[in-house]
Amino acid sequence: MTQLALDRDELQQQLAAIIGPQNVSRRQADLVAYSHDLWPLALIWKRQGKVPYPPDFVVWPETVEEVSAMLRLANARRVPVVPYGAGSGVCGGTLPLHGGIVVDLKKMHRILAVNQTGLTVTAQAGIIGEDLERALNQRGYTLGHFPSSMYCSSLGGWLAARAAGQLSSRYGNIEDLTLGLQVVLPSGQVIRTKDTPRSAAGPDLKQLFIGSEGTLGIITQATLRMVPYPESRRLRGVLFQDVHSGLEAIRLVMRRGLRPAAARLYDENDTNIALGSLGYGVTGCLLVLGFEGDTQLTELEERLGLEICLREGGQDLGTGPGEHWWAHRYDISYKQADILSNENAISETVEVATTWDKLEPLYLAVKASLEESCFTMAHFSHAYPEGCSIYFTVVAESPTERECEGLYRRIWQGAMEACLKVGGTITHHHGVGLLKAPWLPQEYGGGYPVLQELKKALDPNDIMNPGKLGLERG
Amino acid sequence: MTQLALDRDELQQQLAAIIGPQNVSRRQADLVAYSHDLWPLALIWKRQGKVPYPPDFVVWPETVEEVSAMLRLANARRVPVVPYGAGSGVCGGTLPLHGGIVVDLKKMHRILAVNQTGLTVTAQAGIIGEDLERALNQRGYTLGHFPSSMYCSSLGGWLAARAAGQLSSRYGNIEDLTLGLQVVLPSGQVIRTKDTPRSAAGPDLKQLFIGSEGTLGIITQATLRMVPYPESRRLRGVLFQDVHSGLEAIRLVMRRGLRPAAARLYDENDTNIALGSLGYGVTGCLLVLGFEGDTQLTELEERLGLEICLREGGQDLGTGPGEHWWAHRYDISYKQADILSNENAISETVEVATTWDKLEPLYLAVKASLEESCFTMAHFSHAYPEGCSIYFTVVAESPTERECEGLYRRIWQGAMEACLKVGGTITHHHGVGLLKAPWLPQEYGGGYPVLQELKKALDPNDIMNPGKLGLERG
Repeated sequence: MTQLALDRDELQQQLAAIIGPQNVSRRQADLVAYSHDLWPLALIWKRQGKVPYPPDFVVWPETVEEVSAMLRLANARRVPVVPYGAGSGVCGGTLPLHGGIVVDLKKMHRILAVNQTGLTVTAQAGIIGEDLERALNQRGYTLGHFPSSMYCSSLGGWLAARAAGQLSSRYGNIEDLTLGLQVVLPSGQVIRTKDTPRSAAGPDLKQLFIGSEGTLGIITQATLRMVPYPESRRLRGVLFQDVHSGLEAIRLVMRRGLRPAAARLYDENDTNIALGSLGYGVTGCLLVLGFEGDTQLTELEERLGLEICLREGGQDLGTGPGEHWWAHRYDISYKQADILSNENAISETVEVATTWDKLEPLYLAVKASLEESCFTMAHFSHAYPEGCSIYFTVVAESPTERECEGLYRRIWQGAMEACLKVGGTITHHHGVGLLKAPWLPQEYGGGYPVLQELKKALDPNDIMNPGKLGLERG
Repeated sequence: MTQLALDRDELQQQLAAIIGPQNVSRRQADLVAYSHDLWPLALIWKRQGKVPYPPDFVVWPETVEEVSAMLRLANARRVPVVPYGAGSGVCGGTLPLHGGIVVDLKKMHRILAVNQTGLTVTAQAGIIGEDLERALNQRGYTLGHFPSSMYCSSLGGWLAARAAGQLSSRYGNIEDLTLGLQVVLPSGQVIRTKDTPRSAAGPDLKQLFIGSEGTLGIITQATLRMVPYPESRRLRGVLFQDVHSGLEAIRLVMRRGLRPAAARLYDENDTNIALGSLGYGVTGCLLVLGFEGDTQLTELEERLGLEICLREGGQDLGTGPGEHWWAHRYDISYKQADILSNENAISETVEVATTWDKLEPLYLAVKASLEESCFTMAHFSHAYPEGCSIYFTVVAESPTERECEGLYRRIWQGAMEACLKVGGTITHHHGVGLLKAPWLPQEYGGGYPVLQELKKALDPNDIMNPGKLGLERG
């Protein structure tokens, strides 16, 4: 907001008048804390003592009316507004590129309704995933949505960044789980789409805001599906000779119409780390295959799934590896910060997806690119009947601190170009943010101008998270 | 287009230059034939000799380049363009309200790719549903998408009107089946979204065009999921004492995590007709419950499903009623025209949906409204874990021919108001068109201005199917 000739004291008073002085901060510690998310490059900057994009204000609204009034104010004053959930995004989506107001929704964390007949839960967008899940567990239900950031991500963040949970093969992704949304537009207007399992009443406006990463409005509330907590859960490790045979097994499991909760295949490097820590002295590729739900169906699905795996040359490792994964399934979101504390280190995750016919070419192309400068391991997860995502984890070391950012950007340039060349999507579930914006026009296949037009139509003053998704503040 | 000062001869020459003179018609027979779809009110007008909305031209493009060039021309000349599939819409969505050019896509009917590994099929939008399905069947696959209009609806029509198939509980609705779209914008620009099982790269543009009913562009091609043709199919009739116990059975089947292909419950009147024709001398409510897929899973799901039904008081009628339904499942789309040939008769279908907790109130409210003037029967279908749709079929008779339209409009006014009052969605899968546009703003819960803004942004000259979805030509 430095380029805006705004009186910060005056704006602070106006914000305080709307949400109370205790909910508006210009304290340096807050501005620094909200200047980044978990984007590795932002953490590298932090390590180097740089804070390139501090906001001017951090605010904590408590009601949708407050959000609406603040947006009206910001819109009238042309002040940038950046919605903020739990800050666990890994693409720089919440960086206040042009300063302005970071709107932290964490005080809007109430569960508003649990509909046990209609199997839906309505909650405010600021609720943390694990809090929502536990509240449902206590009533005998589950969301079935388990991003690895479960403890440090919010409902609103899931929606804004199009999250996927680790059991999405069975339960669907966030867009499948969402029956209705409440959204505040930049004008302050509040939209509440109808909570319905389905409708044919025109285009589905929900899907416009899901994945919009705060560029079109603020999601303040959502109604999601929930399901009865599964009666049974069975997880199993199966060892394959190579990536190819493991992928064939997953593809055939999905093709058969089975609905695994988990189907995660680790490549050789990733298997080495995963199984090595368990004391297995083996080489190959580990598949964690899990089924859950009704006990009889789960048993039958597991039997049919295992049959396919053995036919494809898999070796049954029993329940150990699967249960180990389950116990540690949220660890990854905390690990990166540790690695990054080492001087000159780069740690990153790259997740892409495509249809089965192009999956191995995509894996090989992106891997080859990453291996030019990184130690690279990968797993395949979020299987669909039509395809699968690939999740690369890479570690690299820059010769000097100064060269870190350049190396980081070269790694991404190579990976994204390799992905697009094969026809994969540049992100399966981490989103775009600042990081992947340069490749979004190519991703969109001629549709990018449509996104630009939508942005202009819904946010004519460009106050909503300006500069994200490549939508540059004009 | 009568209000436009356009030289029709000149426009005809320009169109012919793009798509060839044989693909442009101003013949009176064509203009009358394309002046209506299967909207019952349009059929009533036809019975009365009225042709209120004839187009000025009917054209049959054969390539996306031709569609693009025509849209550029129409956009420059501000000539309305109405995309047309197979004309089986029942809401007046294709009526050329302001004249102009009806673009019949039926010559764009090629299957472009069958990806047997990635389980997708890419086809042009003008292909008829049954042709696409049979081509896949020959290769051992199925779409799993069976609208009752299967023989008289097109891929593009399914997408434009957000279709649902009769087995959607298992296979999903058209928006779930669509991996990628090709769309031509009013500017002539061609968009091709990426064929991917999923992406987190910003908002999902596909979902903007699905359900847009031709108001934002012309869908020219799509990539859909397909699945291996099911190994087994089992259909069963179960008789319940009343609607309530039958609905409870469906709700519990879905809650258990079973995936019936069909779960159709007929209310007393509908059962009377359905079972009466089979010679059953019973009263109550018939449920057709079907499972399909892998043989072992199908058997287990059917056993678990039947257990639930019997526990809820259902009486197993064996396979007869289910198989009868399967054999006649497409008949309904042909029946209406017969009834409407009777003088002063009105025949209509009203399909709404909501979550389970509001489903019986919705049924009772809409039924009460319809019964004020109609013989009314209903079935419940398209079950979800969260809710279900209700499909009313009504027949009424107007005292005179002149009063037919007024009675028709009163029937709808009452039904839609009753639906909205309970919180149901005004359409589960028939779409909006002209018929339901008056209630769309209320349906959208404050979001209707967003739709208006989108329309202005993407179609600034308002050439795309003007006047539909309530988007009035300014």
